[in-house]
Amino acid sequence: MSRLAYVNGRYVPHSAARVHIEDRGYQFADGVYEVVAVAGGALVDGGPHLDRLERSLGELKIDMPMARRPLEIVMNETIRRNRVRDGMVYLQVTRGVAPRNHPFPTGTRPALVVTAKRVTFMTDPETVKGAKAVSIRDIRWGRCDIKSIALLPNVLAKQHALSEDAYETFMVDDEGYVTEGSSTNAWIMDRDGRLVTRPTSNAILGGITRQTLIRLAREDGIEVVERRFTIDEVKAAREAFISSTTNFVKPITQIDDKVIGNGEPGETSRRLLGRYLAYMRDGAGACT
Amino acid sequence: MSRLAYVNGRYVPHSAARVHIEDRGYQFADGVYEVVAVAGGALVDGGPHLDRLERSLGELKIDMPMARRPLEIVMNETIRRNRVRDGMVYLQVTRGVAPRNHPFPTGTRPALVVTAKRVTFMTDPETVKGAKAVSIRDIRWGRCDIKSIALLPNVLAKQHALSEDAYETFMVDDEGYVTEGSSTNAWIMDRDGRLVTRPTSNAILGGITRQTLIRLAREDGIEVVERRFTIDEVKAAREAFISSTTNFVKPITQIDDKVIGNGEPGETSRRLLGRYLAYMRDGAGACT
Repeated sequence: MSRLAYVNGRYVPHSAARVHIEDRGYQFADGVYEVVAVAGGALVDGGPHLDRLERSLGELKIDMPMARRPLEIVMNETIRRNRVRDGMVYLQVTRGVAPRNHPFPTGTRPALVVTAKRVTFMTDPETVKGAKAVSIRDIRWGRCDIKSIALLPNVLAKQHALSEDAYETFMVDDEGYVTEGSSTNAWIMDRDGRLVTRPTSNAILGGITRQTLIRLAREDGIEVVERRFTIDEVKAAREAFISSTTNFVKPITQIDDKVIGNGEPGETSRRLLGRYLAYMRDGAGACT
Repeated sequence: MSRLAYVNGRYVPHSAARVHIEDRGYQFADGVYEVVAVAGGALVDGGPHLDRLERSLGELKIDMPMARRPLEIVMNETIRRNRVRDGMVYLQVTRGVAPRNHPFPTGTRPALVVTAKRVTFMTDPETVKGAKAVSIRDIRWGRCDIKSIALLPNVLAKQHALSEDAYETFMVDDEGYVTEGSSTNAWIMDRDGRLVTRPTSNAILGGITRQTLIRLAREDGIEVVERRFTIDEVKAAREAFISSTTNFVKPITQIDDKVIGNGEPGETSRRLLGRYLAYMRDGAGACT
């Protein structure tokens, strides 16, 4: 079966899934998106992802393309039609199609695209590999809390990582503090055994996986502190990792030229990854 | 005759002009654009616009979608097929279609969309109306010199202007200096009769109209200084205006709550507009 995509009311073959050239997503990056993991056919943290979608749209004064319950049905139907048991669903909402002009058009219906694909998830946290991150100045705009499709700076940052034989960037603000990765949140475990991640603000995206991990860590007796940290702190950390919908918990074992800890994924990172994989499997986060 | 658009090798009815949902322009704002005025059927400053297109693409390591001469032919053919004598041509290049993933895909062909439409230009600079601008903090990314389609911050800024009954914003950087408008460059004439506009850098787009106006003004004996200026200087200015491909020279007669000069379009602004309209008409800037 070839893949199918939902595009503005219809399920169409993925290869034929198209939008108009004057969709404001194409001409102005005037839209937002979500990526939700699917485990055992169910959305992982579907509720919080849709909460965030509604918030992003609200900040841009774009209407929801449909009510929340029908939207969940579309997501689940896209998952079902693509026979995804484990994988991810991608959801994009833009302000819709209008003759090109900067201001918000009136009477335009938001556009909605939903796709789903299979991914083979890891099952054993002991097999996770460490990765290298490189620091880079954060040159993004001032509203990174909005999950917008204006991702060009993130694309360039990720490409920079690859050009440095790294997996991710740790972006650094003008005051010298790490904001986040190009598509992930950044974490360290400090010398005192506390997990540290930057508090949410306009400077970072409030990761859904980040929020779930804070809860899971605390339930596991790990102290979590939301504060800013520097690249020097990353270099001196016991452990470091990134989190996202598709990376779950990915250990960072080198930052720039400095090996972190003993260069192997840390014990706490592995333990949290194990907790998160179990959380995904138990379906506790599903919104259906 | 209905409008036609050039989309990846074909001229298609505008209403049917579509791109794939995995065009990186739609998912990542991974592309650039140009808007070129058409006067008497010829491109205005076509050469400089294509120079800037090549520069923007080069900064993003996107290949030109075709060599420059064929690209000019496509632009002119799109103008011809849409029977545009006076108007504008819009040109968008993205990194092309690839499965969604942040890093640059390999082996992807850049996507090219070209549209053209008629616009009735003003002919008499004495009839130009003044407009209001409002100041707003510039929260855009650090590479505004690249004419990217990641325009969401510009959209929000322009919408803010409208919500304040204004025509444009004057965006202000962290040091208190005006960068530019949301889709225009900003100018003042200071108390000493010098035209002042911000020097090009990563903080602003190097406007083609801006560059032509600097030349035309100097040819006309007007002193032009490229330096940063503040909103207080705008308030105290003799004249202020914005420039762009589609606005030419548009007088700004109010900034926030302060009327500029006597509240009417300034003499120098009108004179420069007249020079620019004549320049467009004489076809000196055409690249064909």
